[in-house]
Amino acid sequence: MDKKTFTYLKIAGVIEQQIMSSLLQTGDKLPSLRTVCREYGVSQNTALNAYFHLERKMLIETRPKSGYYVKYSRARMPSIPAATSPSGIASYGDIERLVSRVYQNLGEEAGLQLSLGTPANELLPITKLNKGLLLATRELKGSGVAYDKAEGNERLRRQIARRAFAMGCDLNSDDIITTSGCLNAIAYCLMALTEKGDTVAMESPVSFGMLQLAQSLGLKILELPTHPQTGIDLNALEDALKKKEVKTFLLISNFGNPLGSCMSDEAKKTVVQLAEKYNVPLIENDLNGDVYFDQHRPRSCKTYDTNGMVLWCGSISKTLAPGYRVGWVAPGRFKEKVLRMKLYHAISSTSITQEVIAGFLETGRYENHLRKLRQTLHGNLLNYSRVVADYFPEGTMASRPQGGFVLWIELPEKINTMELYEKTIVRKISFAPGRIFTLQNQYHHCMRLNYGLVWDDKLDARLKMLGDLAKKEL
Amino acid sequence: MDKKTFTYLKIAGVIEQQIMSSLLQTGDKLPSLRTVCREYGVSQNTALNAYFHLERKMLIETRPKSGYYVKYSRARMPSIPAATSPSGIASYGDIERLVSRVYQNLGEEAGLQLSLGTPANELLPITKLNKGLLLATRELKGSGVAYDKAEGNERLRRQIARRAFAMGCDLNSDDIITTSGCLNAIAYCLMALTEKGDTVAMESPVSFGMLQLAQSLGLKILELPTHPQTGIDLNALEDALKKKEVKTFLLISNFGNPLGSCMSDEAKKTVVQLAEKYNVPLIENDLNGDVYFDQHRPRSCKTYDTNGMVLWCGSISKTLAPGYRVGWVAPGRFKEKVLRMKLYHAISSTSITQEVIAGFLETGRYENHLRKLRQTLHGNLLNYSRVVADYFPEGTMASRPQGGFVLWIELPEKINTMELYEKTIVRKISFAPGRIFTLQNQYHHCMRLNYGLVWDDKLDARLKMLGDLAKKEL
Repeated sequence: MDKKTFTYLKIAGVIEQQIMSSLLQTGDKLPSLRTVCREYGVSQNTALNAYFHLERKMLIETRPKSGYYVKYSRARMPSIPAATSPSGIASYGDIERLVSRVYQNLGEEAGLQLSLGTPANELLPITKLNKGLLLATRELKGSGVAYDKAEGNERLRRQIARRAFAMGCDLNSDDIITTSGCLNAIAYCLMALTEKGDTVAMESPVSFGMLQLAQSLGLKILELPTHPQTGIDLNALEDALKKKEVKTFLLISNFGNPLGSCMSDEAKKTVVQLAEKYNVPLIENDLNGDVYFDQHRPRSCKTYDTNGMVLWCGSISKTLAPGYRVGWVAPGRFKEKVLRMKLYHAISSTSITQEVIAGFLETGRYENHLRKLRQTLHGNLLNYSRVVADYFPEGTMASRPQGGFVLWIELPEKINTMELYEKTIVRKISFAPGRIFTLQNQYHHCMRLNYGLVWDDKLDARLKMLGDLAKKEL
Repeated sequence: MDKKTFTYLKIAGVIEQQIMSSLLQTGDKLPSLRTVCREYGVSQNTALNAYFHLERKMLIETRPKSGYYVKYSRARMPSIPAATSPSGIASYGDIERLVSRVYQNLGEEAGLQLSLGTPANELLPITKLNKGLLLATRELKGSGVAYDKAEGNERLRRQIARRAFAMGCDLNSDDIITTSGCLNAIAYCLMALTEKGDTVAMESPVSFGMLQLAQSLGLKILELPTHPQTGIDLNALEDALKKKEVKTFLLISNFGNPLGSCMSDEAKKTVVQLAEKYNVPLIENDLNGDVYFDQHRPRSCKTYDTNGMVLWCGSISKTLAPGYRVGWVAPGRFKEKVLRMKLYHAISSTSITQEVIAGFLETGRYENHLRKLRQTLHGNLLNYSRVVADYFPEGTMASRPQGGFVLWIELPEKINTMELYEKTIVRKISFAPGRIFTLQNQYHHCMRLNYGLVWDDKLDARLKMLGDLAKKEL
């Protein structure tokens, strides 16, 4: 947005800050449109747009024949959980069984899928992507029937580099390799950097996809303490690196999964310095970075990487089209190794979907879509938080993600969410129980909820039902 | 074709046999169209189609105002090389350097790419595939933006099973997992079945993609003697299995790469029995099976697999669209393990391209396309063989593939094809030198040529030039 931040967004930003700092509280009447026009010296249309923006975020509401009122209340936000404290390396045990219990019904479409970490189809620009496909069949030589280069679509890599550059990250298209999604990028990185029996450090709780991937490669996982807002504990990380215990470490720098944490620029710098100091490469998972709720996209660790120690992974799976399987990695000094993994295991990625995404990034279509998506998701998050505060058991805590799709919830310790799951799934409500995010005997009373859905009264009611069922467990 | 073999194809088949058995020889005049009509009791149109078919295959030619004449001559076919005799397990050595020397210029488009093993874009039904894409955006829920099931597109898996069933292979859609191409399928199979340090048996020469994949997984390769026509040496294979030296073995059952060999049904049966007897799973690479030049599609080893010991891999990369990255595996009793590899390393395959291929297989479009493709390729092969006999050094031998895309050539032993490569590449002719198909010190005087190109005078002239350059090496 940098250079073309719209006036209406500036005005909305000021009011949002007042609401967030409780200067404006639930039920407070907002200045009339005419007042806004006068105060900010803008047109009626701009004022209307600012209020419309805040309404989409569900921070304010219109009351017919009366005006605009604050809807959101900071007082009604659940408190944030403490930093996690995993105890060390643990075994894979029966994580497999638990995960498949939760995800076995996937794709059956019935019920409320709070268990996923991807946006609902309704939030994706399907019609525009279809137009892009048509265009790509015309523009791409051979309409994408031929093998793409091993490195990936040139146009797409240029766009990824351009976007990285915009956040201060000095990359060019040659530094980038496309992959079949972000998980696939991480898989190639791990295969390039590790061997069976090696240990990889990760944030705890860990996205279970990472647990499964590491298991399939015969890797041990060292889970490190992580704060729901600031991310990984830097001291614990340095300890692990110092002891030469780990071959590589994997971080979700922006809007972690499941905690939603976002590392500060300072922490990112430190992490890169640690990687250099101890000569341990960092696999940075930045697939949620574009879905920020603040004013700007947070930077990546890669931005601070001058020695090629960071393997920066991303994708558009969470923002445009999971099913396109388009992701990428900028593997720094490990480029040759990672490229070989891709070449030897898959030759190349699907040509046509890469071209569609390249087109989307080249034009303003991606940014336009993101702007709406962020508003919707932020609004959803505030609604989820309100429901948790109002209807979940006394003492329930929730993360306060500054971006991404998932909310981490800590229920009172008595509640076992694997048991709760069995009761909610018969009512067709599926969530991700905390236990599947660790190899340790932890997070039994936690859950991860996906808020990348379409908010409506039905969703509201279903979330209340989930809260009620949780209460019954006490 | 089974039930609807067209009459014109039957007639063409009879004449083709007469040509192949030298009953009809180059220059012989063929019966007039009227005679064919009378002899076979068919319409003029059918007779014309039969001759047209033979013309496309370049077996016969029309001479204006004179009639049809035999063009092809068995006498001008180069003789077939002997079975290979690798000596045992060897090291990866500098295979990497050699392969990248040959393929570094790929995608630069210039020159004659005889080094590839895929059909030229001109041979692929691009317009129809594009129509299929448009259709798929309409028919597939969410136009393919959503994750596909881990197992893969249901419609596609049903079609794969249906086609397998047609060759006597009792599969249903649940037995099949889709992948990002055939190499990707084999990669998941190897990851599911082996660990670093294990040994895998393969045919020698080995497709270098397999060498690279195995190397990336830390596997040793046992290269086994293979005959250019009948495939792997069954005694050598049994010896290896008996000694419990190998964890799994990998065969290209139909139209091997690079030899073009095709195992008999009897040999396939035996191989499956050996897999069972010694409890060693077989990874069957059947990606060329649809490109047969005989009357019927050869069967797969999987057809004879009653105990789930065969992991049958295939794709449409060689027949429809390499860049779509659509392949599959029927992993028998190893299904869960292979499925997990796919899920953990890539979540799912690209949704939309799978749907397009499903549509292509469902209708007759795939078979129609294949019929033409096979004719073209068979014609090309006969032309290549003629050029080799006429213009390559005295004593040059060539494989006689019954399908597929590649011809294996053994030049006189004095000629080193890596050195020859350096001389042809400056004239923009690229081929695959024999040395890159083995980890052993072998095949220095061999090369693999791709005949999946469009035959014209220019190609003819370039192949002659290749022959001339080879002669100069003597």
